[in-house]
Amino acid sequence: MEELHAVQWHDGKVRILDQTKLPEELVLLEISDYYAVVDAIKSLAVRGAPAIGIAAAFGVVLSVWNADEVDRAAFIESVNKAIEELKSTRPTAKNLFGALERMRKVLSQNLSRPLREIKSALLRTAQSILNEDLENCKKIGEMGAALLPVRANILTHCNAGLLATGGHGTALGIVRTAIEKGKKIKVYVDETRPLLQGARLTTFELLEDGIDVTLITDSMAAFVMQKGLINVVIVGADRIARNGDVANKIGTYGLAVLAKEHKIPFVVAAPLSTFDPDIASGDHIIIEERHPDEVRKIGDRFIAPEDVEVLNPAFDVTPHHLISAIVSERGVIKFPNENALTEWLK
Amino acid sequence: MEELHAVQWHDGKVRILDQTKLPEELVLLEISDYYAVVDAIKSLAVRGAPAIGIAAAFGVVLSVWNADEVDRAAFIESVNKAIEELKSTRPTAKNLFGALERMRKVLSQNLSRPLREIKSALLRTAQSILNEDLENCKKIGEMGAALLPVRANILTHCNAGLLATGGHGTALGIVRTAIEKGKKIKVYVDETRPLLQGARLTTFELLEDGIDVTLITDSMAAFVMQKGLINVVIVGADRIARNGDVANKIGTYGLAVLAKEHKIPFVVAAPLSTFDPDIASGDHIIIEERHPDEVRKIGDRFIAPEDVEVLNPAFDVTPHHLISAIVSERGVIKFPNENALTEWLK
Repeated sequence: MEELHAVQWHDGKVRILDQTKLPEELVLLEISDYYAVVDAIKSLAVRGAPAIGIAAAFGVVLSVWNADEVDRAAFIESVNKAIEELKSTRPTAKNLFGALERMRKVLSQNLSRPLREIKSALLRTAQSILNEDLENCKKIGEMGAALLPVRANILTHCNAGLLATGGHGTALGIVRTAIEKGKKIKVYVDETRPLLQGARLTTFELLEDGIDVTLITDSMAAFVMQKGLINVVIVGADRIARNGDVANKIGTYGLAVLAKEHKIPFVVAAPLSTFDPDIASGDHIIIEERHPDEVRKIGDRFIAPEDVEVLNPAFDVTPHHLISAIVSERGVIKFPNENALTEWLK
Repeated sequence: MEELHAVQWHDGKVRILDQTKLPEELVLLEISDYYAVVDAIKSLAVRGAPAIGIAAAFGVVLSVWNADEVDRAAFIESVNKAIEELKSTRPTAKNLFGALERMRKVLSQNLSRPLREIKSALLRTAQSILNEDLENCKKIGEMGAALLPVRANILTHCNAGLLATGGHGTALGIVRTAIEKGKKIKVYVDETRPLLQGARLTTFELLEDGIDVTLITDSMAAFVMQKGLINVVIVGADRIARNGDVANKIGTYGLAVLAKEHKIPFVVAAPLSTFDPDIASGDHIIIEERHPDEVRKIGDRFIAPEDVEVLNPAFDVTPHHLISAIVSERGVIKFPNENALTEWLK
């Protein structure tokens, strides 16, 4: 299953596994225009904070890959335009802005070189963003797995797996590494309404790997905790503020409250590219509000009156005091707060 | 909208509004055989603890309504058989067992009377169960509404409305009465996966009455509380133990924990027919486990791998210490516990 990739560069094109079609169909999008990457991010064909960053970086490459122009100004304009458009696709995940900033720096550092070489530098950087993310997930897996007992029942939310990253996964990377190390892991996964990333994606990638997974609705998380079925909650993140507040898929905050009530450790797994030291707390994180039909419909079918008012925030913010540990490639930070994080991010 | 009824007796038949078809289609089932009532309860065409009790009572009437037999033993056998089959439809709602027990008593008290008169007595009793439930909901509405401030944002779960009762509703009865009294009420409703009673039924009946309603996914409840959008949580109940523990739709317990965290009152609205003084605590309430495909599918469409393992408890138990008040037709019991409830139920 590790042959599956959310995003890959292949032969001058970006290959994106269309996650809106999973688990029913395995559709690979072969993309040669950057604006199709814009669409893929907006439509959630590719989702998950690290994977969005990776896709955007390759999108920047595409914006000039097939350009034959020798006009340097037009070339630079194309790259900058792509960066701006990719930046406006989704507001919450830090990784998107980090990846695009890195691409912009590569451009500005190579401005005087031949255009062909700039293209190569951009591609190498995008590829590095992907490769580093995969490596980081493996490190997160190592460090997270070390925290787990020999047998653990893990509750996770949404999809923080290989489908959300360069590979291996963050929360699910911990699951995979723990199993590689011989630990006995059972995963419970919330279906994660409205877009069902848990039901569609997490179950899919865990079943492909033969990992013990049980699907529940979001409303059953409290029940499984109350019944003593869960030892630890592990989730990913879309942005982590300087004080350790975590923005992640809607529903995460509720899980953190429930974990506290049941004295269950609540662990966040995320690469450093998800950290945003410029933001003092979760209060300043922009929460994307998505289309109400995502709640009114499932697939093409309305499951509620078509005109009912709806709230549809895609993320929520878990305050740091509810978080037992954040696991990144640099290590584990227990009971995160501003002092600890500032020290640690130096 | 109060012309809509979950269950009615009409011209020798039981009319059940098929709630599996709402809100897309308004289908009235005209039922003349008790086993079709059994099916309607099992399939959730009729649901909601009080409405199930009402439907079952009319089901008992149907078991002999069209019988021409003069054999008293066969007649009694038919009634008892229907009672047994109706009893085994669903295990959690107390009202079902209470209504059937009442029908059995009416039978035994009238055993020596002409069969025609026994039929009439059974029908009168079933009709009383319905009428009393409607009256009780109105009293619950009065007493619950008095607890609310002049402006209140209420979060509710599942459907504890007129579709779940003899009319008016329990939790939604409080909403309706508060509005009649001029209070300004906004309702947030969880969609209530897996079977979406909130999205399909609560939104439907509130919109029909022109009541301000906003639909959210179950995973957004913590978010709206965190944002200060909710003043009180009001839910119904399927069974209330002697100590005040409440079995209700899966997801209720999690809401109670979240309400505590946010210092939001958590109110349960239920008629006395939902109370079960024979059960010491929620630990002894049987929780129905339903078919895994209710989670794997929405409508006819699989939204998860078809073979993924699933938990599907239909209810959970909220311990009494999380409950601010229970509102019944007899009054309001604040901070319920065994002593208070025993005294109060005398």
